[in-house]
Amino acid sequence: MKTYDVIVVGAGPGGYVAAIRAAQLGMNTVLIEKAKLGGMCLNWGCVPARRLMESARAYSQVLGASAFGVEGFSSDSVRFNWKKAVGEKERIVGKLVKGIEFLLKKNKVQVISGEARLLRGHDVQVAGEVLTAGHIIIATGSRPDRAPLATLPANLVVEVDELFSRTDVPEKLVIAGGDTVACETASMLSLIRRRVTVAAPEERLMPWMDESLSRFVADKFKKSGIRVITGVRITSSQGGISVGDEIVEADAVVNCSRRTAILPPMEDTPLDLRDGFVEINEFMQTSVPSVYAIGDVTGRIFAHVASAQGVCAVHHIAGLREPVDYLRMPVTLYMEPEIGAVGFTEEELKQRGIEYVKGEFPMTASSKALIEGNTEGFVKILADQKYGEVLGVHVVASHAADLIGEAAMCMRTEGTLDDLIRVVHAHPTVSETFREAGFKASGKPLHM
Amino acid sequence: MKTYDVIVVGAGPGGYVAAIRAAQLGMNTVLIEKAKLGGMCLNWGCVPARRLMESARAYSQVLGASAFGVEGFSSDSVRFNWKKAVGEKERIVGKLVKGIEFLLKKNKVQVISGEARLLRGHDVQVAGEVLTAGHIIIATGSRPDRAPLATLPANLVVEVDELFSRTDVPEKLVIAGGDTVACETASMLSLIRRRVTVAAPEERLMPWMDESLSRFVADKFKKSGIRVITGVRITSSQGGISVGDEIVEADAVVNCSRRTAILPPMEDTPLDLRDGFVEINEFMQTSVPSVYAIGDVTGRIFAHVASAQGVCAVHHIAGLREPVDYLRMPVTLYMEPEIGAVGFTEEELKQRGIEYVKGEFPMTASSKALIEGNTEGFVKILADQKYGEVLGVHVVASHAADLIGEAAMCMRTEGTLDDLIRVVHAHPTVSETFREAGFKASGKPLHM
Repeated sequence: MKTYDVIVVGAGPGGYVAAIRAAQLGMNTVLIEKAKLGGMCLNWGCVPARRLMESARAYSQVLGASAFGVEGFSSDSVRFNWKKAVGEKERIVGKLVKGIEFLLKKNKVQVISGEARLLRGHDVQVAGEVLTAGHIIIATGSRPDRAPLATLPANLVVEVDELFSRTDVPEKLVIAGGDTVACETASMLSLIRRRVTVAAPEERLMPWMDESLSRFVADKFKKSGIRVITGVRITSSQGGISVGDEIVEADAVVNCSRRTAILPPMEDTPLDLRDGFVEINEFMQTSVPSVYAIGDVTGRIFAHVASAQGVCAVHHIAGLREPVDYLRMPVTLYMEPEIGAVGFTEEELKQRGIEYVKGEFPMTASSKALIEGNTEGFVKILADQKYGEVLGVHVVASHAADLIGEAAMCMRTEGTLDDLIRVVHAHPTVSETFREAGFKASGKPLHM
Repeated sequence: MKTYDVIVVGAGPGGYVAAIRAAQLGMNTVLIEKAKLGGMCLNWGCVPARRLMESARAYSQVLGASAFGVEGFSSDSVRFNWKKAVGEKERIVGKLVKGIEFLLKKNKVQVISGEARLLRGHDVQVAGEVLTAGHIIIATGSRPDRAPLATLPANLVVEVDELFSRTDVPEKLVIAGGDTVACETASMLSLIRRRVTVAAPEERLMPWMDESLSRFVADKFKKSGIRVITGVRITSSQGGISVGDEIVEADAVVNCSRRTAILPPMEDTPLDLRDGFVEINEFMQTSVPSVYAIGDVTGRIFAHVASAQGVCAVHHIAGLREPVDYLRMPVTLYMEPEIGAVGFTEEELKQRGIEYVKGEFPMTASSKALIEGNTEGFVKILADQKYGEVLGVHVVASHAADLIGEAAMCMRTEGTLDDLIRVVHAHPTVSETFREAGFKASGKPLHM
């Protein structure tokens, strides 16, 4: 029986980071993966989605280039070649998978291909062998729930990961779901001129995010010709696809439904679950203390959260007690424009009875946004009323995913409105809007 | 004689921000401008340069769009229409000037057109009238020194502000100067396929910035076909333009030389100067205590520094003592790719004998950079050896100007390598490279 310090099951951004960290700390580590290194995020999720979004943006930019003085071709002749875009995406994904392979090798992590079966709190079976370890980390991920689309004919349903690998995309699509992945996918497909209907089960798009962001996205979708129907279920009907009471004409339904955990096969070690996800404590330990779980399988559906949880779990195994700070975990959405958020939403502050001040600044008043030709969006800053500590930042802007880093850093260091105002921002940059929103929250905006 | 609390001379980003702030604090304020609201930065400097850079980038993006699956036109047919790009730039500048007009009006700042003459420590003459005030703020700016090009025929020399207003740009250009504006201008002109020679007076491009940045730019220029000749003077010669010992064939020389102060006409109040710039104390007071000076005229050549100085001066007039923190002042360069920097350079740390650790991370290892198709560049982090306080951050990346905000915030709050590592960065983003460089500086990179 082979013996390790740590067995990691699942090589997504949670699992492979945990494995590297464990090996760096001197632990004898094995990483088991049944499909591809990099997991959902790299192969079928975040990375493919972002690359295809970049491609869709490139298409938009070419169509809009004449405003920048770029000429010599007719917009009518410009075409988006999905198959080629997907091919380029595959090339990039392949490169990144190779990168992970290299890192694992360099850090002396053993990799085993196959599906792991959890036997007991220290044992795992894979490829006919039993491995044993002091600790096991489960990082097996999640997938969109198929139940909400159960009544549809199978040939109508496209899983979102599948969509990113197809060589063509139909003209008319229904997106099933209203959360971040649904909104990103709708935005991308709309940029490449597909007719998109978003059918969201909840009354609001992205219901857990700040309401200003949900409202922005709903308005933006409306302006872009994306139909949004909320509070509905999708069912099969004779005429086509029923979205609530309506029949929507569509060639396919893309499944961006709420995600469910992919649990590894288990034998004697049933782990406690909550809502179908593995229950963990603040150090990622499951109900079996030698077994940790991280990432989507725990109900936290972002790659960087999985990585942070992975490092936390490994550090805990090494004797360090460093809980993950979920509040200061940024969220980024690759839409047009981008969205970035960190900290409390305004609704959460109200629910908790926290007294707060608020500052909003529109991108229309940002000179850099005007220069870039992207004046849609805003910055919204929420701060503690008494001490000015920054409690939440919500941004819609062309590089919001990069900008939100400053806000996350501000919150990490318990920065205040005063810090946001006094840290000098280069001019002209979009990040100046943080300062302006900060000024506004504290009562005296310069540029409004 | 009209009486004010504050007279501000010059309506650039130093002067107009100072005037608004003064008015917001209840001071009766007048702003005098001899040319255009927004000054050099908005009308002939940062904003036009950035917009034309965006245009040049759009041209590049269209030429490279097929890698993203965008097709239907031939690269050979794509042209850059400089005149149209300049026209769009004028439109944007016009909009921003209107915005400043609106802000000044809204904040009840009186604006007077004309050239101000400083009479005494409290008096200014403009448009035939004498105005008097408790305090005067001089924000009259700077312009590139013309002396280094004195031997050239006047018709060969183009001032950089003039360049941005011309309806055409010659094919072959010499850029006189090697600092930030020279490098930005060279990068932009090269993107739109001009033949560019940079003739720098010093031995190194951007000699005051971290040497890694200078080296990157020199290498990048070489790869892009931009000729760089350092440590040379430009003189007139029979065969054309002499750059050091060489004759360079060129249609024009763009003057991006070191800047000199534009001093207002003065009568009884000669202000102390240093190297031609107005000497000030930490609160922007000149040798005449009722007269303040801010921005380029003090030898600090960045718009956001001018704004920060303006707020500092006004706050000092209002009784607040808040010196400007020049160390934590970010610098951004709009080149391809962008550059952002804040804090000490490595050379400065060596000179001061500060013990430091260093972490570098290449953009080739960033998945987001790969997704965007821009893997040139790196992040370099310098931190105090003992406590890990971040002392300097130098970034070359596609959105470096936005990314540097996080570093500036980190330094503002006296953040450490530990903060850079533990603040969670969304995945995939370019800002993750901060974490990786932070890990590397502290000894254990995850993704290298």
